[in-house]
Amino acid sequence: MTTDALTKEFQAIVGNENVMVSEADRQSYSYDAAVLEPVVPALVLRPETTEALGKCVKLCNDNDRPLTVRGAGTNLSGGTIPDPRGGVVILTNSLNKILEINEQDLYAVVQPGVVTATFAAEVAKRGLFYPPDPGSQAVSTLGGNVAENAGGLRGLKYGVTKDYVMGVDFFDVDGGLVKSGSRTVKCVTGYNLGGLMIASEGTLGVFAEITLKLVPPPAAQKAMMAIYDNVDKASESVAAIIANKIVPCTLEFLDNATIRYVEDFCKAGLPTDAQAVLLIEVDGHPVQVEEDAAKVVELCKKVGASEVKMAEDAAQRDALWTARRAALPALARARPTTVLEDATVPRSKIPAMIKAINEIAAKYKLDIGTFGHAGDGNLHPTIMCDRRDKEEFHRVEAAVDEIFDVAISLKGTLSGEHGIGLAKSKWMEKETSRATIEYSRRMKKSIDPKSILNPGKIIAGRG
Amino acid sequence: MTTDALTKEFQAIVGNENVMVSEADRQSYSYDAAVLEPVVPALVLRPETTEALGKCVKLCNDNDRPLTVRGAGTNLSGGTIPDPRGGVVILTNSLNKILEINEQDLYAVVQPGVVTATFAAEVAKRGLFYPPDPGSQAVSTLGGNVAENAGGLRGLKYGVTKDYVMGVDFFDVDGGLVKSGSRTVKCVTGYNLGGLMIASEGTLGVFAEITLKLVPPPAAQKAMMAIYDNVDKASESVAAIIANKIVPCTLEFLDNATIRYVEDFCKAGLPTDAQAVLLIEVDGHPVQVEEDAAKVVELCKKVGASEVKMAEDAAQRDALWTARRAALPALARARPTTVLEDATVPRSKIPAMIKAINEIAAKYKLDIGTFGHAGDGNLHPTIMCDRRDKEEFHRVEAAVDEIFDVAISLKGTLSGEHGIGLAKSKWMEKETSRATIEYSRRMKKSIDPKSILNPGKIIAGRG
Repeated sequence: MTTDALTKEFQAIVGNENVMVSEADRQSYSYDAAVLEPVVPALVLRPETTEALGKCVKLCNDNDRPLTVRGAGTNLSGGTIPDPRGGVVILTNSLNKILEINEQDLYAVVQPGVVTATFAAEVAKRGLFYPPDPGSQAVSTLGGNVAENAGGLRGLKYGVTKDYVMGVDFFDVDGGLVKSGSRTVKCVTGYNLGGLMIASEGTLGVFAEITLKLVPPPAAQKAMMAIYDNVDKASESVAAIIANKIVPCTLEFLDNATIRYVEDFCKAGLPTDAQAVLLIEVDGHPVQVEEDAAKVVELCKKVGASEVKMAEDAAQRDALWTARRAALPALARARPTTVLEDATVPRSKIPAMIKAINEIAAKYKLDIGTFGHAGDGNLHPTIMCDRRDKEEFHRVEAAVDEIFDVAISLKGTLSGEHGIGLAKSKWMEKETSRATIEYSRRMKKSIDPKSILNPGKIIAGRG
Repeated sequence: MTTDALTKEFQAIVGNENVMVSEADRQSYSYDAAVLEPVVPALVLRPETTEALGKCVKLCNDNDRPLTVRGAGTNLSGGTIPDPRGGVVILTNSLNKILEINEQDLYAVVQPGVVTATFAAEVAKRGLFYPPDPGSQAVSTLGGNVAENAGGLRGLKYGVTKDYVMGVDFFDVDGGLVKSGSRTVKCVTGYNLGGLMIASEGTLGVFAEITLKLVPPPAAQKAMMAIYDNVDKASESVAAIIANKIVPCTLEFLDNATIRYVEDFCKAGLPTDAQAVLLIEVDGHPVQVEEDAAKVVELCKKVGASEVKMAEDAAQRDALWTARRAALPALARARPTTVLEDATVPRSKIPAMIKAINEIAAKYKLDIGTFGHAGDGNLHPTIMCDRRDKEEFHRVEAAVDEIFDVAISLKGTLSGEHGIGLAKSKWMEKETSRATIEYSRRMKKSIDPKSILNPGKIIAGRG
């Protein structure tokens, strides 16, 4: 069917106003937050009901049209870049209903297009807590969070999106509704298909409804900043805190470059002459929080922090986290292109990883700011560059290659929380195995024989 | 290849002493803890190395021999009953090495045949904690726990096996090693195949190595027993505790029948005239534990507990949990056959579920003792019967059918923690959908085209 004829069919399903065909509209959905070539989709759809969503999927499959579901497009690995073969983008932003928040049974049921921060706020109003807090939470959607298994600042204590998914109902490529998981804490009825959907980047099904676990919020929290004149001492502090059986909810690292860019960007009061800072928050019962905070201060000083500043009130605490959240935008405005990586290592390997990143930066004469979730071993080396400068970008690519090699040699992983998408599929086999790729491809092929569901992502690679 | 010829090939891989061919040996592996017809395997293998395990899998596939991997055979849904078409059983009990316990990075790497309790004890020696504690933990294996997504008593606060699986390396049906997950807290490299292995009952791969998350142990705990002269008040207490944002690590329910059988079995000091008891443990920081315990006592009394007895020391605490763990053996010795179900509902639906179970028991004139993980909504209605009495067993089957119908109508699930196996696959579609079964079958077929990996489990059903 021609795109024009197909347009009419889609209009009948979602309404004329929800089929976008103009060049300008389609351009808007040609890229995401990854540094990759844009691909303009043939059509953009915005279904307003779950039923319409299922019909759109079926119509795409019936007409051999690759489809890419898009939440807020904040993903960093090209997972929402449409397929060049007349790809269709399906937006979830009208599927944004919180269907249920169950206070007795501690779960919520949502449509995929609900914005993460909106959901967390609604949950908080009921006196409950949804911990996952990816950097893009203000605009990212829960469907996108599940499709990417989004992480965030609270991963160390509270885990990531995966740890909150109780069930996923999703459309198979033919529009059949597949149900997995339950509203119960325990469920082993059938394959863990909800688990399989997590981090599957839209390649195995289209989410209709997601059931998420909620928890009671911590009664108290306390944040602090430890300042170091030596990077190793900062990373040793991380190890010391964990070894002492303290699990902070957040344990973040900023190197000197990041500190300076953040200060320049938003005057957050960070010490620009420090080689590194750790931003730490402990939470829980008030007595435990006091004890843990005191212990963290003691440990950081013992390992060699020059100073540990305690946030004395909510305003000071907010200031610390605003500074941390400013890291990426601050680095991003330094140069035209920002390559943000998320190679991740077991947390005791952070000193080795930071050392390697600095050596790689020197070797390739690149400006790299490193910050991230030190407590998870999930660092974000951020390369400030200009993609139009081919010679420089070759060096960037070589540096990224080496960063991955080091992470894997330290028993870490290519991607802690950003996903594989288009950007990293060529490295997949290096970390896993040929058998892993083939197993994944066989599975994908059986579920999506015509390669309609967000093709090219994760396992496309080098054939 | 004939079984004799194949025997020689297997002997070359695992050694003569690890290939069992005698009738008596094979009989021992013809059944598991489910109430189902035994099936005698053609051969039983006990590989001693991961490499040999992989070769056994490949040899089975090359010779069209269905294989069933068996840990301790404690599963309750027929997941380890071999295939009647000359099935091979592969034992994991010689693959029982704890390869690493990493205290800095809070993970462990194990072979699949490590016994759960042995592992938990080794972890405890290092001052760490592995929370999942299925009822069979004294003999069950970690590989079996992952294959079944085993639950246990601590699910309410600490989750189930699923929540501790960081990675699984497994053999595909052709003996290729598939790697999924990582030693890092965060990992999104490729499909969540480790997640897919969870609860897959040996039908999608054969586990080689499992990476498990560890946590710091709670500093203190306190156990208590709340006694009720009315079942509804017990289940209302569960709701009241959760609604007050207290998350006990354990919150167990025993009905009057269970209490009487347990007392008769082991003189645990349970009140035989009570209609129900709740056994509750809170853990965490000592101050929090004191506060939570006091609050739980207050709530239980307010709702209508006639008495709440606090365990004053470790011996009294152990006695409570010994009594709880005696529930199944106590009920099991009452009659020749014990049908132990695990239909699970959102926890606020426990009063409705208990009421329905009692009505079903009366309707079918059956003796049903109900106990279980009330905090999870995961009850174990246990039907005491005699399978040889066909008339009675028809009533048992009708009762089980109705129990599942009620659980599903209450937005619950067929199985909270026992798995689908052979026993429940015919009910799968009732809870999920036709599309779910077909999606699962397509996936299974692509991964295991000749149906070698534990065939007939989960999705065999009614075609």
